[in-house]
Amino acid sequence: MTMLEVIEKKKLGQELSPEEIRFFACAAAEKSVPDYQLSALLMAIRLNGMTDAETTELTLAMRDTGDVADLSSIPGIKVDKHSTGGVGDTTTLVLAPLVAACGAPVAKMSGRGLGHTGGTLDKMESIPGMRIDLTVEELLRQVREIGVAVVGQTGHLAPADKTLYALRDVTSTVDSIPLIVSSILSKKLAAGSDAIVLDVKTGSGALMHSLEDSIRLARKMVNVGNLAGKPTVALISGMDQPLGTHVGNALEVKEAIDILSGRAGGDLKEVSLTLGGYMLVLAEKAKTWEEGVRMLEEALESGAGLRKLREMIQAQGGEPAVCDDTGRLPQAPVRKTVCCGRDGYVREMDTVALGLAARALGAGRLRMEDQIDYSVGFVLMVRIGDRVQPGTPLCEIHARTEADAVRAEEAVREAIRWSDTPCERGKNFYAVVTRDGVTRL
Amino acid sequence: MTMLEVIEKKKLGQELSPEEIRFFACAAAEKSVPDYQLSALLMAIRLNGMTDAETTELTLAMRDTGDVADLSSIPGIKVDKHSTGGVGDTTTLVLAPLVAACGAPVAKMSGRGLGHTGGTLDKMESIPGMRIDLTVEELLRQVREIGVAVVGQTGHLAPADKTLYALRDVTSTVDSIPLIVSSILSKKLAAGSDAIVLDVKTGSGALMHSLEDSIRLARKMVNVGNLAGKPTVALISGMDQPLGTHVGNALEVKEAIDILSGRAGGDLKEVSLTLGGYMLVLAEKAKTWEEGVRMLEEALESGAGLRKLREMIQAQGGEPAVCDDTGRLPQAPVRKTVCCGRDGYVREMDTVALGLAARALGAGRLRMEDQIDYSVGFVLMVRIGDRVQPGTPLCEIHARTEADAVRAEEAVREAIRWSDTPCERGKNFYAVVTRDGVTRL
Repeated sequence: MTMLEVIEKKKLGQELSPEEIRFFACAAAEKSVPDYQLSALLMAIRLNGMTDAETTELTLAMRDTGDVADLSSIPGIKVDKHSTGGVGDTTTLVLAPLVAACGAPVAKMSGRGLGHTGGTLDKMESIPGMRIDLTVEELLRQVREIGVAVVGQTGHLAPADKTLYALRDVTSTVDSIPLIVSSILSKKLAAGSDAIVLDVKTGSGALMHSLEDSIRLARKMVNVGNLAGKPTVALISGMDQPLGTHVGNALEVKEAIDILSGRAGGDLKEVSLTLGGYMLVLAEKAKTWEEGVRMLEEALESGAGLRKLREMIQAQGGEPAVCDDTGRLPQAPVRKTVCCGRDGYVREMDTVALGLAARALGAGRLRMEDQIDYSVGFVLMVRIGDRVQPGTPLCEIHARTEADAVRAEEAVREAIRWSDTPCERGKNFYAVVTRDGVTRL
Repeated sequence: MTMLEVIEKKKLGQELSPEEIRFFACAAAEKSVPDYQLSALLMAIRLNGMTDAETTELTLAMRDTGDVADLSSIPGIKVDKHSTGGVGDTTTLVLAPLVAACGAPVAKMSGRGLGHTGGTLDKMESIPGMRIDLTVEELLRQVREIGVAVVGQTGHLAPADKTLYALRDVTSTVDSIPLIVSSILSKKLAAGSDAIVLDVKTGSGALMHSLEDSIRLARKMVNVGNLAGKPTVALISGMDQPLGTHVGNALEVKEAIDILSGRAGGDLKEVSLTLGGYMLVLAEKAKTWEEGVRMLEEALESGAGLRKLREMIQAQGGEPAVCDDTGRLPQAPVRKTVCCGRDGYVREMDTVALGLAARALGAGRLRMEDQIDYSVGFVLMVRIGDRVQPGTPLCEIHARTEADAVRAEEAVREAIRWSDTPCERGKNFYAVVTRDGVTRL
């Protein structure tokens, strides 16, 4: 078999055999064929697609190019959660402790932020002392003991994805559904959980802008996850504005703690409970989603969720007192409140621009090696549909310097669009996709 | 402008702007963007196509990455001819002297053989002493003085094509009509002629196997040639069997001389006269194709064509006496006649296999740097549709060794397929494509 034959077949729109797909995945992992052949195949896949069977095979083949975590020493059904990425999306820090408090073990490997989206690992590291580089043994022991761990990748997961992801980025093949699915699920499968809840974002701040594309992506993910032997459910959630009100690493940890303490609500809480409810169903701790959500609400009200977060922070070397006093999180020296200058309604938010504004403050990276300032970011005080008047506070900026704050203010003002007449609030969820089909919400 | 934006646009099926196309052509010539981006764009072009306007722009942009020959010091309309490549296709050596003998100047740059097809330059070099590496000044002087020259590329023609052709070969993007058209026509335009006759082969031995694909290619070539300001006509000719009876470098020169001497006829002669007829029309030496063919037949019968070939050989340092005694051409030490073992009819010939059999004898190259044996090859004694009996000679093999001859015999026997009932002879021409449309023949 040669790479040229594999490219030829996909170019002609034919289905690749399992052997051909494994050849491609290994070639990517081992860099044994030239990049120009990999990129020609990536473009052929982008334009001619892949069947569910092909995508499943590619996912498994990519998983098998690296280590596969063995979580079997943790009793119970381990459910993982993955989000396709957004701004102000701190669901992991809210739902992982809540789900664990309801008795479902959570052994979660998370990623870092890049581009306009934040990463769970960066948020966790804003907690003083927090370790995310646990060994596999430490991870297993912690989940066996306290039921939850959120860590960085342990071992060498899906190295084929590393090569392909880097190439896709520079060859305009990021937006290929089979390539997105195999990239995400190969790593999820390598992370070893038994079932997966996916949060597929849709809207201006998401990988997929249109609802139809988001549903196509979710269907493919659910089909492939199930074909790979892992019960998988996907929710399509809105990313027309930042999910939480807080954007920035320590600020997002604060919002998660505020929610777990019962001090805050809003969309981040609703989305976390919804995703967590499905996790409890897949973990067989709840019979229905409604029951799962009820269990999570109880864990929230009883303080069991916050206690679980405190346990996790302590187990991973962090300062658990942040759970009682969020003032112990890194604080930015400059705070600036941005107020509205007009009457009207919030019509739209440019979510990508807001994510990039947070990055410009120092909350994110341009390159993987960039340093993050955990303290900076902003707190949005309005949401789409809100009525405003001159003087209504829009946002509180947390910055390193006055100059940074002024630039961020400009960016935030540009990112918010107005209407003179009332406008609809976006939905948090648009659809649930299971192996049985799509239910619009 | 970045390469990524250009790839993105073509991936989405949009039309590239002239600036974007020139950026791509320059990047290919200067190797200023990585191969993996060029190959991603090549695949996007292969799958999403290019309009005639885009293909014309790419052709012109590729031409402009190198030298453009200036033939304006040669009086008259210079008509070039290009064939998409075949086996036993010696039309250039027949028609260039004939067309020149009819008063139309021919300044032709030819190529070398690669793969299963032969190249005019290799055939010419089988004539003892023949030079093909003329300088531009020598080329111009020779055509002004005797009306004809067939040479290798002078100068640095379309370097973008060199990069792209090499990449297409290894990324399964050879069979893209816009890429074929721009590759061929960029070099033809750089070679400086005023008008172009194209011989687009169709059938088992051709780049395009189906007539419909061949016609699509021809239409695009004719549209782009005319859009680029060069009157262009294309003929679709059959390549279901070698065009001439002789395959191999010196053997093909011998067949050309035999035709110009009036000793041989057949398909090679018919195709040469047909293409030459259109060349005389474009050169404005004949009003109609029929008149052009009549002029060529007269030049053939009067011996003017052979005299012109002799003059050209002499001008380029070769031994003109080969025109009177083809025995002066290189002769292979071993000759072996292959006879038929059965009754029946010739149904099919695997033209590619016959081309590769000639290469295996030493008539062609596996790599550009390989040495050619000019003397070897074979003479086919049957054509599709011919009736045979046991003992009918099929082929005379010219080889370096007995062992080579035995291997070639096997290959030739495998390449010919039989029928018990009469079967149709293939056509030499299927269609003529002009700017006015397609005429099926």
